[in-house]
Amino acid sequence: MPKNEKYIDIDFAKLDIERVKRRGASEAVFCECKTDEQLIKIFSEFKKHGQNVIGTRVSSHQAKILTKEFKELKYNESAGVVTLVKKQIPLVGEIAVCTGGTGDIPVAEEACETAEFYGSNVKRYYDIGVAGIHRLFSKIEEIRKANVIIAVAGMEGALAGIITGMVDSPVIAVPTSVGYGSSFKGLSSLLTMLNSCAEGMTVVNIDNGFNAGYSASQINRKIVGE
Amino acid sequence: MPKNEKYIDIDFAKLDIERVKRRGASEAVFCECKTDEQLIKIFSEFKKHGQNVIGTRVSSHQAKILTKEFKELKYNESAGVVTLVKKQIPLVGEIAVCTGGTGDIPVAEEACETAEFYGSNVKRYYDIGVAGIHRLFSKIEEIRKANVIIAVAGMEGALAGIITGMVDSPVIAVPTSVGYGSSFKGLSSLLTMLNSCAEGMTVVNIDNGFNAGYSASQINRKIVGE
Amino acid sequence: MPKNEKYIDIDFAKLDIERVKRRGASEAVFCECKTDEQLIKIFSEFKKHGQNVIGTRVSSHQAKILTKEFKELKYNESAGVVTLVKKQIPLVGEIAVCTGGTGDIPVAEEACETAEFYGSNVKRYYDIGVAGIHRLFSKIEEIRKANVIIAVAGMEGALAGIITGMVDSPVIAVPTSVGYGSSFKGLSSLLTMLNSCAEGMTVVNIDNGFNAGYSASQINRKIVGE
Amino acid sequence: MPKNEKYIDIDFAKLDIERVKRRGASEAVFCECKTDEQLIKIFSEFKKHGQNVIGTRVSSHQAKILTKEFKELKYNESAGVVTLVKKQIPLVGEIAVCTGGTGDIPVAEEACETAEFYGSNVKRYYDIGVAGIHRLFSKIEEIRKANVIIAVAGMEGALAGIITGMVDSPVIAVPTSVGYGSSFKGLSSLLTMLNSCAEGMTVVNIDNGFNAGYSASQINRKIVGE
Amino acid sequence: MPKNEKYIDIDFAKLDIERVKRRGASEAVFCECKTDEQLIKIFSEFKKHGQNVIGTRVSSHQAKILTKEFKELKYNESAGVVTLVKKQIPLVGEIAVCTGGTGDIPVAEEACETAEFYGSNVKRYYDIGVAGIHRLFSKIEEIRKANVIIAVAGMEGALAGIITGMVDSPVIAVPTSVGYGSSFKGLSSLLTMLNSCAEGMTVVNIDNGFNAGYSASQINRKIVGE
Amino acid sequence: MPKNEKYIDIDFAKLDIERVKRRGASEAVFCECKTDEQLIKIFSEFKKHGQNVIGTRVSSHQAKILTKEFKELKYNESAGVVTLVKKQIPLVGEIAVCTGGTGDIPVAEEACETAEFYGSNVKRYYDIGVAGIHRLFSKIEEIRKANVIIAVAGMEGALAGIITGMVDSPVIAVPTSVGYGSSFKGLSSLLTMLNSCAEGMTVVNIDNGFNAGYSASQINRKIVGE
Amino acid sequence: MPKNEKYIDIDFAKLDIERVKRRGASEAVFCECKTDEQLIKIFSEFKKHGQNVIGTRVSSHQAKILTKEFKELKYNESAGVVTLVKKQIPLVGEIAVCTGGTGDIPVAEEACETAEFYGSNVKRYYDIGVAGIHRLFSKIEEIRKANVIIAVAGMEGALAGIITGMVDSPVIAVPTSVGYGSSFKGLSSLLTMLNSCAEGMTVVNIDNGFNAGYSASQINRKIVGE
Amino acid sequence: MPKNEKYIDIDFAKLDIERVKRRGASEAVFCECKTDEQLIKIFSEFKKHGQNVIGTRVSSHQAKILTKEFKELKYNESAGVVTLVKKQIPLVGEIAVCTGGTGDIPVAEEACETAEFYGSNVKRYYDIGVAGIHRLFSKIEEIRKANVIIAVAGMEGALAGIITGMVDSPVIAVPTSVGYGSSFKGLSSLLTMLNSCAEGMTVVNIDNGFNAGYSASQINRKIVGE
Repeated sequence: MPKNEKYIDIDFAKLDIERVKRRGASEAVFCECKTDEQLIKIFSEFKKHGQNVIGTRVSSHQAKILTKEFKELKYNESAGVVTLVKKQIPLVGEIAVCTGGTGDIPVAEEACETAEFYGSNVKRYYDIGVAGIHRLFSKIEEIRKANVIIAVAGMEGALAGIITGMVDSPVIAVPTSVGYGSSFKGLSSLLTMLNSCAEGMTVVNIDNGFNAGYSASQINRKIVGE
Repeated sequence: MPKNEKYIDIDFAKLDIERVKRRGASEAVFCECKTDEQLIKIFSEFKKHGQNVIGTRVSSHQAKILTKEFKELKYNESAGVVTLVKKQIPLVGEIAVCTGGTGDIPVAEEACETAEFYGSNVKRYYDIGVAGIHRLFSKIEEIRKANVIIAVAGMEGALAGIITGMVDSPVIAVPTSVGYGSSFKGLSSLLTMLNSCAEGMTVVNIDNGFNAGYSASQINRKIVGE
Repeated sequence: MPKNEKYIDIDFAKLDIERVKRRGASEAVFCECKTDEQLIKIFSEFKKHGQNVIGTRVSSHQAKILTKEFKELKYNESAGVVTLVKKQIPLVGEIAVCTGGTGDIPVAEEACETAEFYGSNVKRYYDIGVAGIHRLFSKIEEIRKANVIIAVAGMEGALAGIITGMVDSPVIAVPTSVGYGSSFKGLSSLLTMLNSCAEGMTVVNIDNGFNAGYSASQINRKIVGE
Repeated sequence: MPKNEKYIDIDFAKLDIERVKRRGASEAVFCECKTDEQLIKIFSEFKKHGQNVIGTRVSSHQAKILTKEFKELKYNESAGVVTLVKKQIPLVGEIAVCTGGTGDIPVAEEACETAEFYGSNVKRYYDIGVAGIHRLFSKIEEIRKANVIIAVAGMEGALAGIITGMVDSPVIAVPTSVGYGSSFKGLSSLLTMLNSCAEGMTVVNIDNGFNAGYSASQINRKIVGE
Repeated sequence: MPKNEKYIDIDFAKLDIERVKRRGASEAVFCECKTDEQLIKIFSEFKKHGQNVIGTRVSSHQAKILTKEFKELKYNESAGVVTLVKKQIPLVGEIAVCTGGTGDIPVAEEACETAEFYGSNVKRYYDIGVAGIHRLFSKIEEIRKANVIIAVAGMEGALAGIITGMVDSPVIAVPTSVGYGSSFKGLSSLLTMLNSCAEGMTVVNIDNGFNAGYSASQINRKIVGE
Repeated sequence: MPKNEKYIDIDFAKLDIERVKRRGASEAVFCECKTDEQLIKIFSEFKKHGQNVIGTRVSSHQAKILTKEFKELKYNESAGVVTLVKKQIPLVGEIAVCTGGTGDIPVAEEACETAEFYGSNVKRYYDIGVAGIHRLFSKIEEIRKANVIIAVAGMEGALAGIITGMVDSPVIAVPTSVGYGSSFKGLSSLLTMLNSCAEGMTVVNIDNGFNAGYSASQINRKIVGE
Repeated sequence: MPKNEKYIDIDFAKLDIERVKRRGASEAVFCECKTDEQLIKIFSEFKKHGQNVIGTRVSSHQAKILTKEFKELKYNESAGVVTLVKKQIPLVGEIAVCTGGTGDIPVAEEACETAEFYGSNVKRYYDIGVAGIHRLFSKIEEIRKANVIIAVAGMEGALAGIITGMVDSPVIAVPTSVGYGSSFKGLSSLLTMLNSCAEGMTVVNIDNGFNAGYSASQINRKIVGE
Repeated sequence: MPKNEKYIDIDFAKLDIERVKRRGASEAVFCECKTDEQLIKIFSEFKKHGQNVIGTRVSSHQAKILTKEFKELKYNESAGVVTLVKKQIPLVGEIAVCTGGTGDIPVAEEACETAEFYGSNVKRYYDIGVAGIHRLFSKIEEIRKANVIIAVAGMEGALAGIITGMVDSPVIAVPTSVGYGSSFKGLSSLLTMLNSCAEGMTVVNIDNGFNAGYSASQINRKIVGE
């Protein structure tokens, strides 16, 4: 079965243009290890085939190159995300994106950009970490209204478990590499989240706002009934 | 706000009887480090308050003690799960529970028992790991029909990513401690799953079939519209 | 200077009988790797010199042997602690000992026994972890009254940071080895606690209820003015 | 209860202005991952509300920006700390801050600045590590007079345990990332300190002079009777 | 026995010129930690003795220096490989070099250059990773024809196991350091590959395209009957 | 393509009976996590379909159960391997299996049994580790004659690299968990082998004699021309 | 050269009987992974050739078997060491063996037995760890007289560095697995010792009393002039 | 006793000028984390007191600053070592310093400089690693003549164990951070060396040529009879 699906073969890359059909969503491009030439070629192909495309972990240099080449491309600098949208996707439902601290915002923004690209409304709740837990409590009623919650936190990473224990919606936890010393570049918050005893929370890779945004949007849209 | 909620205080434990109201689901008891006396006391309290309760990571000794005390209690030996159900929960929707190998079945069964306890229908697809990938392909059309998919795998743990790349439903990946040598008791499959480039997959703790079953059921029921 | 202090030399061990004078506290015996003969000899020496002594990480076998030999010895089974008290120490001030779950109680009890042995009053607050945070909130006013707080938690270990953010007393965090999978025998809660952004919390070794009890008692007694 | 407390909401951050009331101490700003604009906005808000504020892990670039904007701001370059003090805090009691080597001084200075900001007198004892233990012994009588001792050490990190065994005051140990090879950026000294058999010592995160200074000051002030 | 073999002694290095005789293959130079002077001296010696030589992990600076000195030297920038060939080696058999993503290409190119240097034909199959598994299936019949297969992948590293399960040729798996967060610089894909349950796959060091290319070529040539 | 292949579905397992056709080799059963009932069922199915089967990591209890049920089954206790052979496989070529010490023999025997099951002649060279390197040298001429060499070693694991540097055949290195302390259950020898600078050596999982035997046999048979 | 040396080939083992000639010392047998039959065979061969032999990490079961077979064999239970001495070795010089605690004695005893077997006088200084450093100081003048010092310590492992800083003799540090929690089975003391800034100290594997005793004896005898 | 020893107190550092008397050797300065001002002050003090001093891990910037200030200072760039010698130390005995590869030379040079500074003759044997073991064998007779051998190696680190098995002198092994991928910055060679079964070898920290040189010189001088 999988053999009959199509893709664009540009030698150094095979672009999965039937992903919309198979998985209900456009392909995303992980930009970190790609050369300028490779990126331009990839985005050109998607554009040629009239497909929406999102690029993640885009450096400011890469953003400059791409923006010059593709005038309609949008760049969120904090998120390190570019989007090239040909067919506007209507936004439905609601996802709450929360961060423990200000330093977690770039990862949260990657999640927001991704969730919107894949068709979900997003509300942001930033810097509501557990060191001053009344900040979280003042927002919790609003957060509970979302279909899916994304909790982004570095250092101890306790925010995700605390939220999960107070809501009735699925929570996707994103550990970040914010911290120093024994945070070991995000390992501490990753372990905190994996070991939470608050059921209903699942975890993605350290700093992986993209997958959190994608997964949350997928669930949100299914709940809404798309 | 959280201050006004009730719980049963039995000194060594504080039972969260308002969880059904707050989170839409009964409490679960992690049995691993509890004494016989503690377990009996806890289950008695839930029974007294007419609440359903599920116990996980139950040893065969504990199961014997509890079954003797509570005649209506059910024990799934492979899963290490006991359930004491006072109000039957109607099963809705569908969750697919897949394993890479035969050794992953106990964790998968914990997920199945949990998902059913929390109100979801479950279908099992066992031993369809990637060493003989045609086994997976022969089932993939069926698996795609589920609202949520749970993929349970030890050793290399590649199953979860392969499935995610072929479906349009959210996938919850459960690494297991099956393996030896550099599997480091589940670390290898945990890392495989966290680093999958197949978006739409989230991960729970090693061997945590319970959280996978809970989370899948929560999402499944919301998709169905409960 | 240190050269002139005395100790009892029994060959395989050198007993620090001037610790009361130098450090204001009797010596403690770590029992885990000692033979029966060694333990009996050590306790006999302390008894002969009229000194109080506390033994930690005592197995049930060791407790039986010691209880038989020293009638006045007291054994707390859950804590794995024995005490042989010749001169009663008056209890002063107040320490709050909190646990996240029921499984953390043995470590908490080690802390309680130790704190009392070294002269502090103790209040216990067990099973108030963050999965049902209203349990913590219902006790927080009481907990705030203590001079020092000990927070004992395994798995994600978030309890300690949450408490610290809400009180004005020093908090000593004790990670426990309760958990499984990626808790890696207490590593997850240790890292959570070390990386907490709630200032005013310090950490001891995994499962080290003894040091937590000792340190808390030392601070408590100084605050009281002893 | 926590819900009623106030904070200043500036969108990307929620400033905890009631921390003085709740915890007896002003808020601190972790500067490492913040943009210039964010820092200026945060410090402006604290200034506007007449609150003291301390910033840690300040880069020299950030210090230049902040000093330009806030003339009364003080910068300790070695410590990487800035302070903006509106209401002078009287200094009480005494904290001894010791380092193993010269390379540990920046972390020690962060602890000193913090302890002073939060109202404690500080005495410095630098480069008294165990390779030439007579240096420590020549100072030990002075060190013993402090209410609380902070021991800062990298590499093997043995200093903290040695001091603890000779004094009657609580010791807060700070591992540093000074070292190379198998020091693994501070892991070696962190483990040394956590595993010390000298009771009465607690530990903070690698390089976390801030929390050590805060915790020591909190205990010192309580001992003094504030 | 080994004592009688010859080598060129240039003090800081001992060049193994009898390797062709003993092992059937020329020596390779690991360039990463060598100074410019050392490299020029080493390549000069090989040239003087009329031996082929390959240099790996060559920086662009080193490549410039060497190219200037040795006109006949060839440089593959993506691979970081230089070759100086005096006696042309005929290419035999066939090796398939596959990558999971575009970011893995530099490591794959190192493998290709090496395999060719040591006498094997190479076919490239890039960006056929498991996120869109139909891309792999469309090429699998071709890949099966190779005598040996090299599978290069970062992140989750599942590609190698999937291929192995579908072919009848030996597979050499090369984990790469492509990824972020919990990929821990290639650890995740290394563990995935070591724990694969698809027998017939062996593994080399992270990013070690050279050894993969060498080993594959050695096996390929023996199969061909050289 | 893969969809059309057959397998036997016995619910808890899917037996890959077309592996002989697809991969040129019978399936192997990893026995470690299987119940007695599961094992008997699996072996019965293979027997019924007239297929050879090998079982690895067989406990002595499992061996007893299986031997009772299948009279023709052979058990190598040291290797923990059982084989049930219906169609005798002719042995071709030659594989040399070497160990560093006596403690590595069980893993080596697993490799030998596997290599023979899959059709290769095997010669054993045990206890020739590097502590007395003249033992290795006295055998090296013989070892060089093999088509493929398997080097099994625990502790420091240096044997594999030493052999590789002296031969012209591919070497498959098997780290073992023999050792203590910082061998970390085989991690030390695994890392030694992965980091060897002797090209032409590839590595399998710790204690994975099975995969070493399989891979070596696959290469050996192809060299012989099967 | 190495090729001409002799050894006894008993198939599963190759006994290095010329070690005395080549290395100046008899061979030692690591008993941990050997079967009863293997041990008896090995010891018989050494006996037959009139060679002294020492066995380490001997279980009590193995000791019983060996003692029964070889009447002249001596067994040190605490050390887990057996010795079979045909030609008495005269003891020369002096080695000081120190331990931090009582739990480290078994490893220290292994070192003592080994050092004596290889011809050195030994003096024991047990339980002089840093928690009560006056105990060490009362012995330091005696310890300084030894030609070589062995320092054995678990947990924080600081003893070795402290001693090294006060003496003029080489120190061999032996980390032990005594401890719990974040001692990670000896890792903490291993890292402490490796990172000591007291020059003149070298380290052996965790719990490796044998190598410490051997190395110390080798150096001691050379200093004495043997 | 230790209290009466003298040192120079320059506030940020306490210089151990009686080390020559106590330990028989001048102090060394670890330069890595020191400011220019600190370094100049420290070297000035030693100069003023007429003491020899050695500085290690000196950056090229630091070397320039120091050379300008102290005309008689010598700098070995490859080693990163400076020496300021007032009283010439006569060189005695012999130490052999061996490296596995060319990349290990900087660490070896640090060892050589140190050994000479502390009074020992040194012979260098570079690039004699195990990939071409005949290079080692051609030198082994010379190496055997040294009183002490230093073996420096990165990557797999097997060189040290091979040499140890062939000589009758103590060997000090120095793992280096040369390598990539799973060498984990020297961890692989560190573990190889710690787990060597060749008795008579001890280990120092990764890249710690200084301690190796110091320890070797200390032993060498004692053997010579100084």
